[in-house]
Order: sequence, then C-alpha cells, then structure tokens
Amino acid sequence: MVFSSSVILAVGAHPDDIELGAGGTIYKAVQAGSRVIALYMTKGGKTTDSNVRMQESTKAMKILGVNYFFFENFPDTEIPNSFEAINRLEHYATEHKPDIILTHSVNDTHQDHRTVGWLAMAAFRNVPKILAFETPRVRPANFLPAYFVNITGCVDKKFEALRCHASQKEKRYLAYESTVNLASFRGSQVGVEAAEAYEVVKFLEI
Amino acid sequence: MVFSSSVILAVGAHPDDIELGAGGTIYKAVQAGSRVIALYMTKGGKTTDSNVRMQESTKAMKILGVNYFFFENFPDTEIPNSFEAINRLEHYATEHKPDIILTHSVNDTHQDHRTVGWLAMAAFRNVPKILAFETPRVRPANFLPAYFVNITGCVDKKFEALRCHASQKEKRYLAYESTVNLASFRGSQVGVEAAEAYEVVKFLEI
Amino acid sequence: MVFSSSVILAVGAHPDDIELGAGGTIYKAVQAGSRVIALYMTKGGKTTDSNVRMQESTKAMKILGVNYFFFENFPDTEIPNSFEAINRLEHYATEHKPDIILTHSVNDTHQDHRTVGWLAMAAFRNVPKILAFETPRVRPANFLPAYFVNITGCVDKKFEALRCHASQKEKRYLAYESTVNLASFRGSQVGVEAAEAYEVVKFLEI
Amino acid sequence: MVFSSSVILAVGAHPDDIELGAGGTIYKAVQAGSRVIALYMTKGGKTTDSNVRMQESTKAMKILGVNYFFFENFPDTEIPNSFEAINRLEHYATEHKPDIILTHSVNDTHQDHRTVGWLAMAAFRNVPKILAFETPRVRPANFLPAYFVNITGCVDKKFEALRCHASQKEKRYLAYESTVNLASFRGSQVGVEAAEAYEVVKFLEI
Amino acid sequence: MVFSSSVILAVGAHPDDIELGAGGTIYKAVQAGSRVIALYMTKGGKTTDSNVRMQESTKAMKILGVNYFFFENFPDTEIPNSFEAINRLEHYATEHKPDIILTHSVNDTHQDHRTVGWLAMAAFRNVPKILAFETPRVRPANFLPAYFVNITGCVDKKFEALRCHASQKEKRYLAYESTVNLASFRGSQVGVEAAEAYEVVKFLEI
Amino acid sequence: MVFSSSVILAVGAHPDDIELGAGGTIYKAVQAGSRVIALYMTKGGKTTDSNVRMQESTKAMKILGVNYFFFENFPDTEIPNSFEAINRLEHYATEHKPDIILTHSVNDTHQDHRTVGWLAMAAFRNVPKILAFETPRVRPANFLPAYFVNITGCVDKKFEALRCHASQKEKRYLAYESTVNLASFRGSQVGVEAAEAYEVVKFLEI
Repeated sequence: MVFSSSVILAVGAHPDDIELGAGGTIYKAVQAGSRVIALYMTKGGKTTDSNVRMQESTKAMKILGVNYFFFENFPDTEIPNSFEAINRLEHYATEHKPDIILTHSVNDTHQDHRTVGWLAMAAFRNVPKILAFETPRVRPANFLPAYFVNITGCVDKKFEALRCHASQKEKRYLAYESTVNLASFRGSQVGVEAAEAYEVVKFLEI
Repeated sequence: MVFSSSVILAVGAHPDDIELGAGGTIYKAVQAGSRVIALYMTKGGKTTDSNVRMQESTKAMKILGVNYFFFENFPDTEIPNSFEAINRLEHYATEHKPDIILTHSVNDTHQDHRTVGWLAMAAFRNVPKILAFETPRVRPANFLPAYFVNITGCVDKKFEALRCHASQKEKRYLAYESTVNLASFRGSQVGVEAAEAYEVVKFLEI
Repeated sequence: MVFSSSVILAVGAHPDDIELGAGGTIYKAVQAGSRVIALYMTKGGKTTDSNVRMQESTKAMKILGVNYFFFENFPDTEIPNSFEAINRLEHYATEHKPDIILTHSVNDTHQDHRTVGWLAMAAFRNVPKILAFETPRVRPANFLPAYFVNITGCVDKKFEALRCHASQKEKRYLAYESTVNLASFRGSQVGVEAAEAYEVVKFLEI
Repeated sequence: MVFSSSVILAVGAHPDDIELGAGGTIYKAVQAGSRVIALYMTKGGKTTDSNVRMQESTKAMKILGVNYFFFENFPDTEIPNSFEAINRLEHYATEHKPDIILTHSVNDTHQDHRTVGWLAMAAFRNVPKILAFETPRVRPANFLPAYFVNITGCVDKKFEALRCHASQKEKRYLAYESTVNLASFRGSQVGVEAAEAYEVVKFLEI
Repeated sequence: MVFSSSVILAVGAHPDDIELGAGGTIYKAVQAGSRVIALYMTKGGKTTDSNVRMQESTKAMKILGVNYFFFENFPDTEIPNSFEAINRLEHYATEHKPDIILTHSVNDTHQDHRTVGWLAMAAFRNVPKILAFETPRVRPANFLPAYFVNITGCVDKKFEALRCHASQKEKRYLAYESTVNLASFRGSQVGVEAAEAYEVVKFLEI
Repeated sequence: MVFSSSVILAVGAHPDDIELGAGGTIYKAVQAGSRVIALYMTKGGKTTDSNVRMQESTKAMKILGVNYFFFENFPDTEIPNSFEAINRLEHYATEHKPDIILTHSVNDTHQDHRTVGWLAMAAFRNVPKILAFETPRVRPANFLPAYFVNITGCVDKKFEALRCHASQKEKRYLAYESTVNLASFRGSQVGVEAAEAYEVVKFLEI
C-alpha cells in the first residue's frame, strides 16, 4: 500500500509531472507519515527558464508536504536512454531505500515520459513496488490502470500544488476543472469520489 | 464516420445503456441526418417494472431525436449467449441495413453487457463498422478506446435523456456531474471539450 | 494490502483451489489479524465423494487458521455462468463486507475456474480489491501477474494444508516439491524467497 | 513440429473448418507420415442437410489423405460450452494419443468456433501442443499468429479439398482465388510462397 | 473518415513506404478532393542513390495524384529518436494543419519504421486522427488492424505507383501479385474486394 | 523444432545470458546433432574483467558442447540500438545461415536485453524462426511464453555451465536451487519435469 510505505520515491521527467500524476497520493501519504522524495529528471528548461520551473515545483512540493526533492540536469525533451541515467536513478534507490516508486508509464506519448518509465524499470529492479502514474499524455488505449488511490478530500490540495506552475498556466490540464475532472473520473471507475490511477509495473507485498 | 452514416443501429442490453454509452453521438448523428435505430435486448425488468423502464427509454430516445426503437424480451441479467439471440440481431441487420453498429464492449464486468458484445460480433459480421461504447461497468484496465466522438455542445442533451430514467435515479452515474465528468475526461484525452469513447471492433471505410 | 485487510473473501471453484492459489497469503493474513472467509463454489464431487472433499478442505482451512468457510452446491465441472451464481456471490459480499477478494483468473484453462473469475468480476463490482490467483491450470502466456505476496516462512504451512487433500494426492501439483517450487519461482521474480503471484483485477487503496 | 508429429488431431466446429484452417498443413503432414485424425463437432446441419455436409467433408478428407475422421452430433450454431463436450474431446485424446491439436482460435467471431477453442483448451490440457488455425471469421485485430506452416506446392490440393464442399459454394472464401490469396498473404509474412498461420496456444518440444 | 479529410499528411521512413502502406487510400482521397501531403523522413540512400529514390517517389506520388511531397534528410536505417526529428514533424503539422496522419506502426520490425511510429505519436499529439499503416515488415502477431479502407478499383493504380520504384524491383513485395494479394487479403477480412489495413492510434471524429 | 534445426544461432547480451536462458535447449540440440553458434554482444566488462568473463563463457559453452562462439565488443550496459549493431548480427546470419535464433525478449527490464531483442527482430527478418528466452530480468506480467523445450535430464548439465561463471557467483539466480527451480516451474506448466520457456517471435515450419 502506498500510504503505509515508509519511503516513497516519485520520479518525474519534468517539474509538474509528479504533481499531475501523483499529487493527491503523495499528499495523503505524507499526512499518513511516509517520507516522500521527489526527483525530477530535468529542470524543464526547454520552453521556460529552468530556475522558474524549479521554484514552481519547489513551491508545489512544499504544499504537498514533501521536503525532499531533487532536480537532475538531463536535457528537457531529450532525456537519454543511457546507462548514466539508469545509474543516477540507482543512486537514489541506494541512498533513500524507497519501498515504492511512483513514476511514468511506458505507454505515454511524450518521449521523455516513456524514457523515464523504461529507465525506472531497469534502475529500480530491486525496489519491491513500482506504480506508473497517469499524465495528460498517456495513450488512451494503452494506459491500463488497475491500481487506484482514493484521494477524496485531497483534490483541492492537489490543485493548489498544480497552480504553483504559473509559467505553464496556459496548459489546459492544469486548470481547476481538469484536476477535478480527472480525479472524479478515476474515482467513478472504482466507486469513490476522487482517485488517482496507476498501472502496476510490479507490486510486492512484504 | 458515425455522423455521415445513413443508418446507425445502437444495441444495448438494458434501457439506459445506449443513452449512457452513446447518447451524445446519437443525438449529433440524428442532427446530421442519420437514421438511428435503438434496440434494447431486455426490458430491464429485474429491479423495476418493465413498462416503466420502456417508457423511460422511449422518452429518452425522443429527446435524442431517435424515432425507431425496439425492445426485445430477453431476460434481464440473463441474456443468453444463444443462436436465437444472434438470430434476432441478424434480423435487425437484414431489416434496417445499418452502416454502423454501436454496442457493448466484451471488456465489461456486467454479464449482460459482455454477452451482447459477443452476440453482436457474430450477428453483425457483415456490417462494415462496429464500435463498442463505454458504460460505468467497463473494466478500467481492459476497455481500450481508440475512437472518440466529439460531443461538445451535446452533453446537456445527453443528460436530459439520462434524466428520463427516473426509476434508476439513485444510480450515481446518472447524475449530472457524472455525465459531464465522463464527457470531459474523454474529451481531454483527445483535446476537445467533451467526447464519447469507443473501442474499434471493426471499421471499414467504404 | 492483503495483510492489512480486515475481511478477506477467498472464492475457489473446488476444494483445494484456494489452498493452491492463496494458501500462504491467507495464512499470513490470519496471523496478521485479518478475518478470512473461504468459499468453495462446488463440493468437488465429480471424481471423489463430496463429503470427503469437504472434510479435506475443512481440515486444510483450519491449518491455515481460517474459521469461516462455506461450500456452495454448484455442479463440479459445470459451474453455470448464471445470474443465480452471481447472486450467491453477492450474498457473501453483503453478508461479510470483504475488503478484498482472492479468486480465480479468467485466464485459466479449467472451465470452472474461468467461470468463477467472470462471476466474481460481476458480483464483486463494489468490493474495492480483486486479485486473481494462480492455479496449475492457468495459461502460461496469458496469466499476467503483477502483484506478489511474500510468503517466505509460510511454505511449509501451505503444504501442510495441501496435504490434507489426501483424495487428490496423485495430482502432481500437490506434492511438496511442487509447492516449494512454485513459491520459489514466484519469489525469485520479485527478489524474495517465496511468493504467491496474482493478477490485479482491480485494486483500490482507500 | 507439425510434420514430425506421429499423431495429429484436428478439431473443427463444422465440416469445412479444418480444411479451411489447416488443409495444407494436414496434407503435408500425411505425406510426411503422420497419422491425422479429423474431428468435426457438428454435422453442420443448420443450413444444409447433415448427410450432404458429412459426405463433402469425407471426400475432402480423402483428398488430403486423411483416413480417420469423426463427426460428433453437437448442434450446429449452438455447440455447448459444457462438460459433456469437453468429455467427448478428452475421449479422443485418450483414444488416439495425439502429439498435437489443430483447432479453432478463441479470437474468432463465430460462436461455435470460439466455443471449440475454449473446449479444446480444457480437454487437451495434457496434450503437448495446441495450435489455433485461421478461419474467415477470426477477428483481424485479435487473431495473433506467430506459427506458420509452409504449404508451398500444396495450395491446389487444399483447394481441391475445399471444392468438395459444393453445398457451400456460394461462400466467397471457398473460391480458388481466396484460397490462393490467404496462403500467399500468410506466406509473404514469413518469406515463403504459401503458408497457413496459427496462434500458439501451447507448444512443448519433447 | 480518411476520404472526407481535407488535409492528409502521410509520413513514411523511406521512399516507397507510403505507397506500400497507403497508396490506395491516398489515391482515393485525392480523387475525393482531399489535399494529400507526403513526407519521407529519409531519402533512402543506404543502398541506392538518393536522387534516384526521390525521383521514383516523385513519379509515384504524381501517379497517385499527390502534388505536395517532401524529403527530409535523416540518415537511412538510422532515423534518430530525437527531439530534432519530432520538431521537424511538428513543423509539418503547424504548416499544413492535417486532419489525419497516416504513418508507420510501432509494431514493425524495421527500426526506422518503428522510430517514425514513435516520433509521430509525440509530434502529432494535437492532430485528431492517427492511423498506422501496414508494411511488409510489420510483426504478424503484433500488428493489430481494426480500421480498413476499401480500395476496390484502385489496386492497379497503387501498383502503378509502386512500379515507379524501379531501383527496388528485386523486392518481392513490390511485385504485382504481392500488391493484389495484400489488398485482397485485407479486403476479405472485411468483406470487400480490396482494402488497406490500419491500426487505430487515435481517431477523433469532430 | 529446435532440436531438428541444423544450425542454431543463440544471441545474448552478456556472457552467461545464453546459458541462463537456453543452456538446456542448446545442450540437447548439440546432442541431437545441431550446429550451435553462440554470440555474445558484449564482453561483459562493466563490473568484471572482460577476459575473465569470456573465459568463463568459453568454458560454459564447451560444457554444453558448443564449439562456435563469438564475442562482439559492444559496450556492456550500453548496447546501442544502431544500424551498426544490426549489421553485425546480419553478418552472422549471412555467414552461418541459421535455421533458428534464440535470443532476448523485448519484454525484459534490462536495457541491454531489450535492445538485443529489438536488434534481432530487425537483423534476422529472413531467418525462419526466432524464439525469445527467459532471463531473471524478464517482466513477470509481460513475458508471455508459449513455446517450451523439455530439458528433463539436462538440468545438471545446464547448472554445470552456469557454475563456470565464478565471477558472478554472488548472483542468486546462478545458484543450483535457482536453476532447478526455474526448470521445474516451467516444466510443471506443460507437464514435464524440466523445461525452458520461450516467447514465439516467429516460427516458420518449412
């Protein structure tokens, strides 16, 4: 279970990816006492200044109660499928000993998301649980969620975090309606008010 | 394309299934000049009086502009996977010569829905197009929509049709919020305001 | 998480199915304080006397610490895909309010197993978690386990339960070696000594 | 390998199914010394007289060199998914000890074909090899052939067998062009002149 | 619907790929009034002179009625999975505002085809329709076509276009028989004389 | 059939991969008279000296009776998805004219394994058979074996080969128990004592 994990490592390609895919889950886990570490593989500098994006995610993470976050410096839109990248991820596993990884799905149309999904599968082979979160770019007919986290009561908090990304505000999926809508739809699929959906890459109950 | 079809045959297991899965599409197609035929395989009499349910669907269909609708008498919750059922469906194909079928997905947890999906695949083998619609009971990790119909501007109409099912009103998925939410989510996956999602069973462009 | 569930309902087609698929998990859950209910859909009377088989499973369940077990009377090898069967399963859900269902996979070559998998999907639509266990009859290329329960230290207990099925002892998969071997293989896939593997039908973390 | 099998059991729903799906393979196997047994689950009496259909398949089988063929009497278009049907199939396995089964795919739109595919999976669980052949009714996006048998030089023979089904001659897929065309297409996918394609249900090389 | 699209952008890895996968569709669409743009990601210079290959495709496109075609200069057999490549594709979308993309499937064994399939998924995320065409190199058990375009009456025209590729004439799949055979097989799967088959990546009916 | 192949080309990413995935099959094939060629794409120098690893695999191959083995020099953990790599593989096909390829699955979490799986699919497009073997790193829910080779009686020999990899001995999957366990599990799925499991990429019976 995500909430009872002592250490959660969330890995996103760009500032805002973790918030979008797992913001509610993370917030709830922090409340439940988990130590959450957020790792962004890029500083997202392709279209906006990297410093701005890092500040935004920093702010967002604080709202979600996350005190440990890191920004790697892989090139935005060109995260390499390299040993070096795998190696960096392994470093975080060694350092923080996560029980669970929350990261991108390989069934995503964004090249960086897909790459991070594959890198994570290799790097975190010894971590007992890997769940792949949903982004606005997943392929509708290929993203196959079977794991849902009830985030009822946390959607406004999630939106508060997303709203920190002021530089991205023209992106429709960052709007309040979109945030509520996604949470409500995924909730409706499992009979709760609001949920976040995940593909199960691997889940070992210890 | 659904909208340019001259004859659309929608087949649902119970009164309200067609409205839920394809209400917006049907309404838009009628507006565009298609002849739409709605066929319910049962009268839905398991928990409510059949006459009430038929009246409700009749009212709903009229709101959507559908003038041709039929109710078969297969037993609610026990639609048989039988030759007779296939035969009935074939009769409608012969009689109405549909260009396209809108029906249930075999990836649905409701036994009747699944059965209708399989029956349709056999019965409509000579119809050029079959799309499988979404119900609140599809399996999240197995319903694989690749075909989307933009129903922007028709969501209120769809809800108006759903609201006719007064006998079912305790069902959460018939609420206004649910209707909007589903349409918005599917719309967001393809970049429009509102959509209905379908699995492509077969699609022949003639 | 299975272990932290307060009520677990395990549903098998025949006496011995639950023990084979989820014996270790159940034992461990009972130890952790869960209330486990075992339901057999048949009394397994096709090749052996039903009373013998029920006694064997009763004994097995006691070894695993399960105090609540029930035997429905559906015909062995011919469990019907009927509303009545779904209805019976719903009754158990209403009565016992399980948090999680452990049952057969629809990707199994045994007709009864497959039927129970489909029945469960319909009947337990409102139960938050459904996991599908492995039997010696699952289809190797279609059983897709992503959820694993660590049963290290419980394999001998599982075997002790399986050994109760004296009437079936000619079945190779009930041998000690087979029990250890399956547990070790599934364990090796996730880096522990012994595990039971499950397909995730649906998993809602509340 | 099919050709080096000593006993091949081909199971079709109706007279002509085996010829269509595996005619070339069977012919070649007989030439190579295999003993081929053809089993039809129905006598195909729905639209034509059963005796006529049996005579046609008898003639067809002789052309392919098959001397052992049997007709069960399950109802055409309504082959039951029953224990009795599984039992009948098991009887053939016990009697003839086949090394390999050639039968229908469960990914077929014809209800009888699909049923036979599922029955075979249950009945032949102890037969080392099961391949599922292609019919004109397989679902294009769901029939997933990975096993191909080179039937170069045998296509005319296959057609000669198909031509025996004079009562079905209005079926387009029995035309000479269709026979050649299917064989050529499947051949082109693997670089030979003509082939028959199969899904691998299970293949144990002993 | 392809034919009613006002702007179609076809993207192939090498000269001849578009003709092979979508030649009939394109021809028919041009006749129906669509504006078709063909884009080749390489000039195909690995085994033949680039100029020859470009001249051949130019000739082929003219036969199909396509007046707009472009050749990018990515290295044949080594099209990079890079941001630059995505960027080039986006440029075409911005410039030509296509309604639909016809391109390679990611389920293809040729590395360049697969890469183009992935690039297209990223680059054309805002284009409403993406269909993936069939090449002689698709993986038989992984190419899953559900969308078919009737090209009856256009097969000779398609062959005429293919024949322009004189430098490749030793390739068996460019032969007249292969062209007819593929079209006939795909047609037979949906009940018409000749068809081209596509995987549906995304299809939004507006 | 693997055993009746005259020339088998086994391709692994690192010294020990072929032994792990196909050691029993290879040994049995050599006994049956096949000519087996083993090709390692790297010398495995990332964590151990390349010379040591090559010596170990040389020893292992001799135990299995393989006299032809080659080591390419691609970088360990970073095998490129390049034309050059495909080209090298094609060279082996041209030189040795294999009937069958045994190689990695693309459904593996190790980046090098996955890359070799894709390279092989491109390079060996004209080889009639490709089977993908199992490593300790395959994804449990995505490795889909349908082809099994009975290696009863050869498991000790396989282990003897694995034991040569003294430099890797801390790897748990090289232990005797693991070797037996994997073979027994895969055997149990098809009713024999010991087996190796393969995904069927393509299998043409000539």
